[in-house]
Order: sequence, then C-alpha cells, then structure tokens
Amino acid sequence: MSEHTNKQFTSDLETTRSLFLQMGGLVESMVKDGMEALASGDLSLVDQVREREKEVNRLEVEIDERIGLLIARNQPTAGDLRLLLSVSKMLTDMERCGDEAEKIAKMARRLHESGARYEPVVELRHMAGFVTTMIRDSLDAFARQDPLHAAQVVRNDKEVDKEWKGSLRHIITYMIEDPRTISRSIDLIFIARALERIGDHAKNMSERVIYMVRGDDVRHTGIKNTERLARGEPVGEDNEV
Amino acid sequence: MSEHTNKQFTSDLETTRSLFLQMGGLVESMVKDGMEALASGDLSLVDQVREREKEVNRLEVEIDERIGLLIARNQPTAGDLRLLLSVSKMLTDMERCGDEAEKIAKMARRLHESGARYEPVVELRHMAGFVTTMIRDSLDAFARQDPLHAAQVVRNDKEVDKEWKGSLRHIITYMIEDPRTISRSIDLIFIARALERIGDHAKNMSERVIYMVRGDDVRHTGIKNTERLARGEPVGEDNEV
Repeated sequence: MSEHTNKQFTSDLETTRSLFLQMGGLVESMVKDGMEALASGDLSLVDQVREREKEVNRLEVEIDERIGLLIARNQPTAGDLRLLLSVSKMLTDMERCGDEAEKIAKMARRLHESGARYEPVVELRHMAGFVTTMIRDSLDAFARQDPLHAAQVVRNDKEVDKEWKGSLRHIITYMIEDPRTISRSIDLIFIARALERIGDHAKNMSERVIYMVRGDDVRHTGIKNTERLARGEPVGEDNEV
Repeated sequence: MSEHTNKQFTSDLETTRSLFLQMGGLVESMVKDGMEALASGDLSLVDQVREREKEVNRLEVEIDERIGLLIARNQPTAGDLRLLLSVSKMLTDMERCGDEAEKIAKMARRLHESGARYEPVVELRHMAGFVTTMIRDSLDAFARQDPLHAAQVVRNDKEVDKEWKGSLRHIITYMIEDPRTISRSIDLIFIARALERIGDHAKNMSERVIYMVRGDDVRHTGIKNTERLARGEPVGEDNEV
C-alpha cells in the first residue's frame, strides 16, 4: 500500500468510527427523550425522536456502504478488518436500539393521549437510566478500545434482566388489582420490554468490542469466560447462573 | 489468484453458504417444534429446541469465523464480498430467530405446567405457520439468489404485523373478560410477539438477499422501492402505507 493510500485508509477508518459514534449519540438521546416524553407528557419530544430515527437509519446505510467500499478497496487484514466487521455488526444493534426508542416514544404518546398516569413509570425510568448508561459505556469501550469496560456492560445486562422481570411482575400485579388498567398496562409492559431489548443490544455491541480488541468471539461463552477473554486469559469453567 | 487458490475459495464459499442453510433449517424446525409443544403439551420437544439452540449458536460463531478468514485471505470484491458481508448480517438475524423459538418453547413449558389451555393458540399457530414459511422463503431466495422471491418475504412482513396486532387485541379482550387469565395471557402475548419478531428477522434476511444480488441496500426504502430495486428498476415514489 502506498503512503498516500495508507494515509487515506487511516483517515477513512477514523471517519467510519466517528460516524458510528455519532449514530450512537443520537440513539442515546432518543432513549432519554422517549422516556422523558413518557414521564412529562411533552409530546414534541416524540416527534423529535421520530426525526432522529430517520437519521439513524440513514447513518446505518451510509456506514455499511463505507465499510463495504473500504474492505473492497483496501483489503484490510487482522485488526483493521476486525474493526470493520465489528462495526458492521454493531450498526445493526445500534439501529435496533433506535427502533426500540421510537417504540417507547410512540407508546408515550398513546399513554398520554389516553390521559393515564402510572406508578410503575418510576421503576421504568430507573431501568431506562441503566440501559442508556450501557449504550454510553459500549460507545466508550469502543472509542477507547477497552475490553474490560466492555465486559462490564456484558455483566450489567444480567441486572437489566432482573429489573425487567421485576417490572413485569409489578405491572401484572397492578393489572390484577385493577383490571380497568389492562390495556394501558400492556403498553407499560412493552416499554419495559423495549428497555430490556436495548440492554441486550448494548451487551451485543460490547461483545463485539472485545472481539475487535482481543480477536476472541465471546458470544455464548458465559459471563465468566467473557471476562477472562476480555482480560486476555484462557477460558475455563463457568458455573455462574 | 492461482487456479488452486481460486478453486479452494469457491469451495470455501460453498461451504459457508451450505452451513448457513443448515443453520436456517435448524431454526425453522425450532419454531415448528416450539409451537407444537405449545399445542400438544409434548414437553420433550422443549428440550429438543433448547439443544438445537446451542447448535445454532455454535454455527453462528463458526460461520462468522470462516467469513473473517475468507475475507482476510482471499480479499474478495464485488459479488463475493457482498455474499460474505450479507451472510454475516443474516447470521445475526437467524440466531435471533432461534432465540425467539427458544423463548416460545420455554413459555409452552410454563403454560402446560400451569395446566392451562387457551383458545387464542389457534390464531398463534396460523401466525407461526406464516413466519416459518417466511424463514423458509428467505433461505430459498438466498439459495437461488432470487431477489423477487426475497421481495415477497419483505411484503409478507406487513401481513405478520397485522396478525400480531389482531392477536394482541384478541388476547387483551380475553384478559378483560376474565382477569383470572391475566398472567397466563401475558405469556401468549409474548409468544405472539416472538412470532412477530421472527417475521421481522426474515424480512431483514430477505433485504440482505436483494443487496447480495443487486448491490442495492433496500433497508428503510419502503416496500414499493424494495420491489423496484429487486426487479433492477430505479426507485420512485412510495405512497403505500
């Protein structure tokens, strides 16, 4: 590769990375604003979330196109190739986080238009704060190429799963106590589910960061092995439930 | 590329394609058996689905590893590169279909262990048949490199969305009429949701087949443009809701 081509490639890689970070920042703000719309009833936020969702879709397509061109033209290997293949996978997860945020915003609109207020919303806000931080941490781990930070996100997803199950139980109890709330409570269940999905996507993105840096695919290996591989250690027993 | 390397590459591509088709066949059987467990109460099927889910996870990691090696070693361009990048994306969707099938199987176990039988199951079986066919059609479109067949899957996803909304309304009505069924009905809602997600994943995979063959990224372009691009025509207005 000539020095010029090499410089161009390095700069193109950097652009790809920074576009992905930009996309991630948009998605993070969408989750925040979707939940804010739910809490405050400020429905102008719903329109903003939907506008940003289109931008996220556009970025997904643009970044994937860049990745295809970069691989075809520069024939990268090792770390550079892993970076590009990882971003291609992370894009899918990030776009779906955006979809989930849009669903939350739409449900916020429906709930507020029906004039309802619910107690479990507090619980969901906590969960939303938690998964928004997971998106942010995945992006940080990606930007800093930090597999240990990424492994922490993978572990945090277990916490989200617990919160999701707790919220679900809580909302079901609520419905049983007052069946008039059934339809509206179903929306809250879907909001909790959307948050749980966002946590899952953040976990998937963080697993890709570990692969990018270490070259080890940690998917389906269990949390303890994920942590070992993130530290650069060999895999072993994993009895953690 | 030497003739030998070229032959080896062609044969490696073929192996990758056939491993993906094998993974798809497993997932298709998982959805069928998960729903069969729900209908019949045959819980040995639940264990089989869970076993196959592990094999699907293993295939996901193996195929992705092969793709990374094939790109690094053979530096493919154009159609071959699009094939590899597409399979890499389709893998993610296929593995998540497997996850959804496993969720269905687990809920089938819970519903049968609680000794319940529900009428809306009939409706869900129809939806399950529909999305299983969508997975099969995506695989056929992939195997035959047929973008028109793929575009039909993308269109069919609209039907799944309608069925999902119909099932949801039906199950909610059921809960309101008899609040004692609330907890168990929530499981049925999640089964319907899992089927709707499988339809979405099949749509995503079919969009990748169109990209693979035509080189056009049809994501987020609307159904009419997807159909135009699948036929090799330029994009235009899309007023379809």
